[in-house]
This record gives sequence, structure tokens and C-alpha cells, in this order.
Amino acid sequence: MARWEPDAAGRLREAAMALYAERGYERTTVAEIADRAGVTARTFFRHFADKREVLFAGSEELERRMVEAVLAAPESAGPMDAVAAGVLASGEFFVDRREQSRRRQAVITATPELREREFIKMASLAAAFTDALRKRGVAPEIASLAAETGVAVFRVAFDRWVADPQDADITDIMRSTLTDLSTLTA
Amino acid sequence: MARWEPDAAGRLREAAMALYAERGYERTTVAEIADRAGVTARTFFRHFADKREVLFAGSEELERRMVEAVLAAPESAGPMDAVAAGVLASGEFFVDRREQSRRRQAVITATPELREREFIKMASLAAAFTDALRKRGVAPEIASLAAETGVAVFRVAFDRWVADPQDADITDIMRSTLTDLSTLTA
Repeated sequence: MARWEPDAAGRLREAAMALYAERGYERTTVAEIADRAGVTARTFFRHFADKREVLFAGSEELERRMVEAVLAAPESAGPMDAVAAGVLASGEFFVDRREQSRRRQAVITATPELREREFIKMASLAAAFTDALRKRGVAPEIASLAAETGVAVFRVAFDRWVADPQDADITDIMRSTLTDLSTLTA
Repeated sequence: MARWEPDAAGRLREAAMALYAERGYERTTVAEIADRAGVTARTFFRHFADKREVLFAGSEELERRMVEAVLAAPESAGPMDAVAAGVLASGEFFVDRREQSRRRQAVITATPELREREFIKMASLAAAFTDALRKRGVAPEIASLAAETGVAVFRVAFDRWVADPQDADITDIMRSTLTDLSTLTA
């Protein structure tokens, strides 16, 4: 049996973020993260596959929630409205993760390997949106366009939120980015 | 002095494409590509840094042309119209490269490492569009949204063109994808 370790995953995440910020992602080792969190490397590996997964462990959960919202949009919703529901569903996921998201974003921006990983996650999200829209009966060529456009909105809105000096609400920013898109393409 | 090698780059590209299709990208070596093209490995390296660059050597030229078209759009053009000019400029680049583009796309789709490389190229294009729009005086948060949306249109239109059984004109497909976007976001 493992020792009693209250929220070891949370402490490991905290420790990793602090170390990535202090000395850079590439120069941080799993042993150092475990040490800072006060657990063994073995405990680290019970929670994360490697030091990269500390940063990306939430991505599947986020994608799942966003896709569910696309599928759950009213039957009457058009493709872009269904995708917008998916984008807005991310707001709930991020609402209590502002500082965490900011620090994570800074680490990713500073590390080419992580930027690439993030691109792959976004491509995965676009593919998942496309599948969800096709399940809603949207024609394939329209489904991929709506999906890719939705991911573009999500990325831009997320960047706006992370950079916002006024700490605006993420859902408000997502909504205004969707409005900006309509204005742009009118 | 090098031996006289008429269009060695072209023959190397042909040989590489044929080998990637026959035995897969990962299992093809530079020596085999050079051999098939009837040149030395030394000649290969005069034209390409490695076997991946055979597939991506045109990307910088494509990005340059697309960005120039954004910058050259009429002063009165809004951000999305300027980006649309950039997207449409790719049509000229691809018009005589249909078969080449199809084969290239098949190799990239089959190889995760190359798909990642392609994502990075698309992120680079979005960043270049953003810069070009900012030079046109577009506000930063609108510039990145228009740029990311333009790249989404480009990717979807390119996929439509490569998959099109009727061999439709690429510029027509780009235009109709832009029209689909307006309809979607109306």
C-alpha cells in the first residue's frame, strides 16, 4: 500500500510548475519534482507518465467536455452554434485555473517541444469536433471547416484570457471572440 | 565543380516521393533516394538538408507569397479580406502541383513526425499572417483571430482540393470555402 499522500498529484503539479518557471522545463528532472513535492519518484510515476504529462494531463478531460457540449447542443443549432457551445464549455473547465493556466502557458511558450505538443492537442480537438459534428448530421466538408474555425476561436480567446490585465471572465472573452469572428467574416 | 546534373533537385524530389509511397517515409534512406535519382548522396545534400526537407522545401516560398498578398491587399480591405487575398494567392502556387500535392499529402498523413511538422508550418503561417495584418494597422487581438481563421480556411480548402474527384480548380475551392465560412458564421 502507498503511504498516505494527501493530493500528491496536486503537490506534484505545483512543484513541477515552480521548477519549470525557475530553471526551465528542459533542465528539470522527475527526481527534482518529486523531491520538491515531498514524495518519491515512484509516487510521481503513479500519477504521471513523464514530466511532460504534468502539463497535459488535463487536456483529455477538457477535450471530452468540449466535445460533449457540441453533441449536447439543441438539435436546431447549426454547425457553428454547436461548435460555439463546445468552445464555451471550456470556460467552466478553466474558471478556477487562471493562475495555473498562465504559468502553464508561459512554460509552453518557452519550450519548442511543448509548443509542438500543444499544436497536436489542438489538431486532436479539431478532429474530435469534426467527428461530433458529423454525428449531428453535418456534411463532412462543412464539419471540418466549422471545427477548425472553432479551434481557432478557442485558441485566440484562450490567449486573450491568459494575457488579459483586467482578469475578465473567460466565458465573456470566448463570447466576444465569437462575436468578433462574425463581424470579421460578415 | 559539380557534374552537370539537369534538374537534380526535381529528380531527387520525384525519387523521394516514389520511395516514400512504396516503402514508407521512415524506411527510406537518403542513399536510396540519391541512388534512385541517379546522383550521389553528396548531390542530395547540396539540395536538401535531410529527407524531411524534400517534402517541406516549398513551404517557405508558399508562406512568403501568401504573406506578400496579405500586405499587397488594397488599403481599403478589411482584415478578413486581406487574409483571403493571402489564402487565394496559394492557388497560383499549387496550380501545377496537383499530383505532387496529393502524393505529398498521402505521405504526411501516414507519418506522425511529418504531421507534426505540418502543424508547425501552419502555426508559422498563422504567426506570419498576424504580423502582416498588424503591419496593416489591424489591432493585435483581431489580427490573430483573422490569421488563425484564414489558416483554418486554407487547410480545409487544401484538403478539399486534394480529395476532390472532379479535379476542380484550387482557387475556386478556396473561394467557395471562404463563402462557406461567411455562411457558417453569419
